[in-house]
Amino acid sequence: MKNFEFKNPTKILFGEGQIAKVSSEVPADAKILLLFGGGSIKKNGIYEQVMSALEGFDVVEFGGIPANPEYAILMEALEVIKTKNITYLLAVGGGSVIDGTKFLSAAAEYDGDEPWDLLEKRIPTLKGMPFGTVLTLPATGSEMNSGAVITRADTKQKLTMGGAGLFPVFSILDPTVVKSIPQRQLANGLADSFTHVLEQYMTYPIGALLQDRIAEGIMQSLIEVAPVIMKDPTDYKAAANFMWCCTMALNGLIQKGVPTDWAIHMMGHELTALYGIDHARTLAILTGSHYEYNLETKREKLAQYATRVWGVTEGSVDEKAKAGIEKTVGFFHSIGIDTKLSDYTDDYKGTGAEIAKRLTDRGMTGLGEHRSLTPADAEKIVEMSY
Amino acid sequence: MKNFEFKNPTKILFGEGQIAKVSSEVPADAKILLLFGGGSIKKNGIYEQVMSALEGFDVVEFGGIPANPEYAILMEALEVIKTKNITYLLAVGGGSVIDGTKFLSAAAEYDGDEPWDLLEKRIPTLKGMPFGTVLTLPATGSEMNSGAVITRADTKQKLTMGGAGLFPVFSILDPTVVKSIPQRQLANGLADSFTHVLEQYMTYPIGALLQDRIAEGIMQSLIEVAPVIMKDPTDYKAAANFMWCCTMALNGLIQKGVPTDWAIHMMGHELTALYGIDHARTLAILTGSHYEYNLETKREKLAQYATRVWGVTEGSVDEKAKAGIEKTVGFFHSIGIDTKLSDYTDDYKGTGAEIAKRLTDRGMTGLGEHRSLTPADAEKIVEMSY
Repeated sequence: MKNFEFKNPTKILFGEGQIAKVSSEVPADAKILLLFGGGSIKKNGIYEQVMSALEGFDVVEFGGIPANPEYAILMEALEVIKTKNITYLLAVGGGSVIDGTKFLSAAAEYDGDEPWDLLEKRIPTLKGMPFGTVLTLPATGSEMNSGAVITRADTKQKLTMGGAGLFPVFSILDPTVVKSIPQRQLANGLADSFTHVLEQYMTYPIGALLQDRIAEGIMQSLIEVAPVIMKDPTDYKAAANFMWCCTMALNGLIQKGVPTDWAIHMMGHELTALYGIDHARTLAILTGSHYEYNLETKREKLAQYATRVWGVTEGSVDEKAKAGIEKTVGFFHSIGIDTKLSDYTDDYKGTGAEIAKRLTDRGMTGLGEHRSLTPADAEKIVEMSY
Repeated sequence: MKNFEFKNPTKILFGEGQIAKVSSEVPADAKILLLFGGGSIKKNGIYEQVMSALEGFDVVEFGGIPANPEYAILMEALEVIKTKNITYLLAVGGGSVIDGTKFLSAAAEYDGDEPWDLLEKRIPTLKGMPFGTVLTLPATGSEMNSGAVITRADTKQKLTMGGAGLFPVFSILDPTVVKSIPQRQLANGLADSFTHVLEQYMTYPIGALLQDRIAEGIMQSLIEVAPVIMKDPTDYKAAANFMWCCTMALNGLIQKGVPTDWAIHMMGHELTALYGIDHARTLAILTGSHYEYNLETKREKLAQYATRVWGVTEGSVDEKAKAGIEKTVGFFHSIGIDTKLSDYTDDYKGTGAEIAKRLTDRGMTGLGEHRSLTPADAEKIVEMSY
């Protein structure tokens, strides 16, 4: 096991009816900016629940944060924060709204001239404006971690940011929100959280027994609830497990003491930037190819995964490893997610080279747990995903 | 899954060499009271590591906190805190030293006349004096939770206390400390952490899939490392997994959203109070009897445990459940822990009735996950453990 440091101070309020507690978590004298996305919260009752809980509080609204939160729009919200003397942010939404709120938390307390530097120059945020979240879409785990991914349309960039100051003060996870999520987003959430676990698990054995078991347990639980969720999102038991698995998949715990990969995400972000493909689906496109390409270095963990998570007991280590890859691709298909780039765009030729170039331009020359994958490797992996 | 709230702000610094970082975690202007136990830290090099890291800090020492931290001794330490204007506590030890430090953290900020009221009247501590820990004995999980158990000799009491203000600010977990722990304490740590998981898991199914998987994963990992640890405590991989499992067993995570039992602990505390038997061994004495006595209400989880943790695949649910109990008792034996009260004292007759009386006197009339076990039930369980 590697040495590690772990601290996650976010308070979780989990379960049906917990949204009403938002009023006890926000300071009474806060001037709140309520941030949300395309307005679905005004149709599914969540907005009413939040506003009813916040009766008597001073609340300003800012809606319209898009999937892949866009810098230009967030800069408008930052202007509102400054002109309205906002002191507390409340994200009501999924990963995009929460990530956008994290950017605003950092930018509101940032002294520099150009908030984009927080991403471009990778400046960690040690203290941001305090914020809470009401999660409406289980997927990214952003509700219990300190990272964010922000998109900038004019430069076609999608960059990460973070820092110990960017944990939500609290996050409310009410599984009944799952029932009003469209099928496509449910499938995305399942694929996204499943791949989050894979990225922190599918590397090489390092003797972190418990981290492996927890990662496997999250994947086993997601596999168990996935067909139920896709068929009947009103099933509270399945929705609750789905929601808690998504949070636990990326709250920092399972990555402690182990090597992590994240190459699928690095390449996937480029696919989203180039084609606008849903984040989770870019991961599904690349996962099988990435593991096939790196079979040699990942075979022990792939075989362990095949055995423990999918019950594959027959065959050599290589055969089990390959069975593990097949099962993973089959899992994506089972929730209605296509796994080839050509399923999403006819304009896929040359994408491998384009992504290699973009990674090179960004200086990202060593991807994966060994930091050994070159842009040329990425090119081949993307080509295997056509 | 039940509704829950979860927040655990303790910062963990895990791994070889982390003790040196204590200086970056304690405020530079702190006046520190360093608390420890019987002095083993002065023989195994841990004291030197801590003091060397704290060079330049203002440190007062208080040693001699016994196993089952004793109120009278802690009151002497409280006097030191007050007369020396201490502002920060540093526990260097195992669960007893850390629990004692939690009591001091609470008592130092307590306004009432009689600090024992914190336990007797169950007053939660929302803000205590800040404290960190350097763990020298993996077992209780106290290094990452907000609870403590304090003993009072003159009244033969052993009571619990806690509150959101009693999480350590930081805890340093260096697995190399394991190599200087005596065999008896290693076995105690394994049995203690294993039983902590059982108490939060062995109840009735409530559909918390991930909590079950994590609990099972901790137990699987402990079973895997136990023989290695007992044979060779210098094995870093085994020591690291042992240490992290003990912490994860009782940091609050696996109890969220599920019913918990804790009857074994309630009865076990009485055995320690009466006979001075090591805490972990009282748990091992009672576990088998408790599960046999409550087979009817725990059979589904016992059978799931037998299958997932011990690989028992044959037989009816009842047969699997019974096999699970046998495997558990066998696990205690495998690490050299006796599981009958008569192995520890010849004076065991009447203990069941005595414990029933003590529980009655304390108003503890409903033990277990259904709060349905009476003192008369406890009497029978203890008698089954003779």
